[in-house]
Amino acid sequence: MKARSGRRKKKVAFQGERGAFSEEAARKLLGPAVVVVPCQRFEDVFRSLEQRKTDAAVIPIENTLHGSVHENYDHLLHFDLPIVGETKIRIVHHLIAPADVPFAKLRRVYSHPVALNQCLSFFAKNRQLEQVPFYDTAGSVKMIMSERPPDAAAIASEVAAEIYGAKILRRSIEDDRQNFTRFFLLHRPGKNRSRAPRAGKNAEWKTSVVFTTRNVPGALFRSLSAFSLRDLNLAKIESRPLRGKPWEYLFYLDFIGRVDEPTSQNALRHLGELADLLRVLGSYPRGD
Amino acid sequence: MKARSGRRKKKVAFQGERGAFSEEAARKLLGPAVVVVPCQRFEDVFRSLEQRKTDAAVIPIENTLHGSVHENYDHLLHFDLPIVGETKIRIVHHLIAPADVPFAKLRRVYSHPVALNQCLSFFAKNRQLEQVPFYDTAGSVKMIMSERPPDAAAIASEVAAEIYGAKILRRSIEDDRQNFTRFFLLHRPGKNRSRAPRAGKNAEWKTSVVFTTRNVPGALFRSLSAFSLRDLNLAKIESRPLRGKPWEYLFYLDFIGRVDEPTSQNALRHLGELADLLRVLGSYPRGD
Repeated sequence: MKARSGRRKKKVAFQGERGAFSEEAARKLLGPAVVVVPCQRFEDVFRSLEQRKTDAAVIPIENTLHGSVHENYDHLLHFDLPIVGETKIRIVHHLIAPADVPFAKLRRVYSHPVALNQCLSFFAKNRQLEQVPFYDTAGSVKMIMSERPPDAAAIASEVAAEIYGAKILRRSIEDDRQNFTRFFLLHRPGKNRSRAPRAGKNAEWKTSVVFTTRNVPGALFRSLSAFSLRDLNLAKIESRPLRGKPWEYLFYLDFIGRVDEPTSQNALRHLGELADLLRVLGSYPRGD
Repeated sequence: MKARSGRRKKKVAFQGERGAFSEEAARKLLGPAVVVVPCQRFEDVFRSLEQRKTDAAVIPIENTLHGSVHENYDHLLHFDLPIVGETKIRIVHHLIAPADVPFAKLRRVYSHPVALNQCLSFFAKNRQLEQVPFYDTAGSVKMIMSERPPDAAAIASEVAAEIYGAKILRRSIEDDRQNFTRFFLLHRPGKNRSRAPRAGKNAEWKTSVVFTTRNVPGALFRSLSAFSLRDLNLAKIESRPLRGKPWEYLFYLDFIGRVDEPTSQNALRHLGELADLLRVLGSYPRGD
């Protein structure tokens, strides 16, 4: 597949059906012309990039209501696929139907149970509508557009409505507007950095690391001194108990700084003296 | 409702259908005789306890694959309902059907999409079985037991099979055995502590707090000094960006210690000097 410039179009893997929020994140990170490759499981997304079937991968890493996606942190540790970008997407749910189905005719609404559950005020105000759980938000739009039930709508993203040629009947029916998901963009190691999203001159950079500490009181405190003694600001820290090792923890930490700056290098060398394991997962321009 | 002793039976609120993993956690924390009150949303669980409709509440707070349940941390901050106990439940998925439905007849399996997705190896080995998404794991058992489709099973917990009088056809069909959820037990403030789960003499205690730091480098480092300078061990720390306040964070922190011990009191006083907001969410015997 070639773009008009003659350059091969970039392929990006993500988990979910076409029109999933991960696809929206992929287009925000890589532009509208990117070729998207939907995968069933997160592991398939990582494998697709590792096996060079795709040029990039986009994964959700945390949500403001549901927390960090530990499974993807596990994959980031297991696969050697650096983070080269991040973005945040507001999770907005729309009521979507075929163009010839009016709101007054609706009796059933299909979507993923999590999405249905995030629109409870809408259903409380529209008691004629039955909630029908479906496998996937975007998949529910795909289904109503192919099977065309005369009284059914779906709840999904704007991108899903566009992709399947459906109409948005009601916009933004979610209960909580403060529902954001943060996504990472991954490449293969050593891949040409020029293909990563361009950062403005004054862009702030973030670096994400994972480390483990020894089982002694104050171990985390000493580890953080590597950053605080150098006035490096933290953007995230999270502990996670190590499986089968009581009192030992894995930490996810993001700090503000580029990994190739001297201060960052010194902080990481210092942290390396204190940590049993230390892995830099990537360094990337801060997403909006 | 009275127990044989004449004492009123304790009522506990949880989110989900009868037979949900939260019910399993409630029985583990409060014994098999407890009266369970299923609620639709997490907020309803907190409200039920606050309005004295129930005597206790059980909520999931984090999962080893999916991370912390931020929504419940939000409710813990909003409601004044202290944590008085914790427990961990391994998430085990069983294939469940009516007693007269043999495995060979099965063609469809109902469950919550998350549960279906956690049993992919089982479905890969049994390609005759179609996955059918349903609203709730326990709810899918309830449905097959009332509607009795001749070729359908459900995926849910052992407790769900018991409650609805169903049979377990295949045990532990989940892909990942390291799937645990941690639950909190909540009471109303000042409620008789003797009703909280008894802790052994040598039981270790945990205290959970939430605090915010000012927007300066090293703020978290200084906050943790309140614990490390007193050799208090941390069991969890997690940062969460404050809504609408870039660079300001809320921290969830668990440390090992009883809130009424002098060292804990000193550490909390010290942390209070550094933090803009500090709330003790509860102090409780460490769950297994």
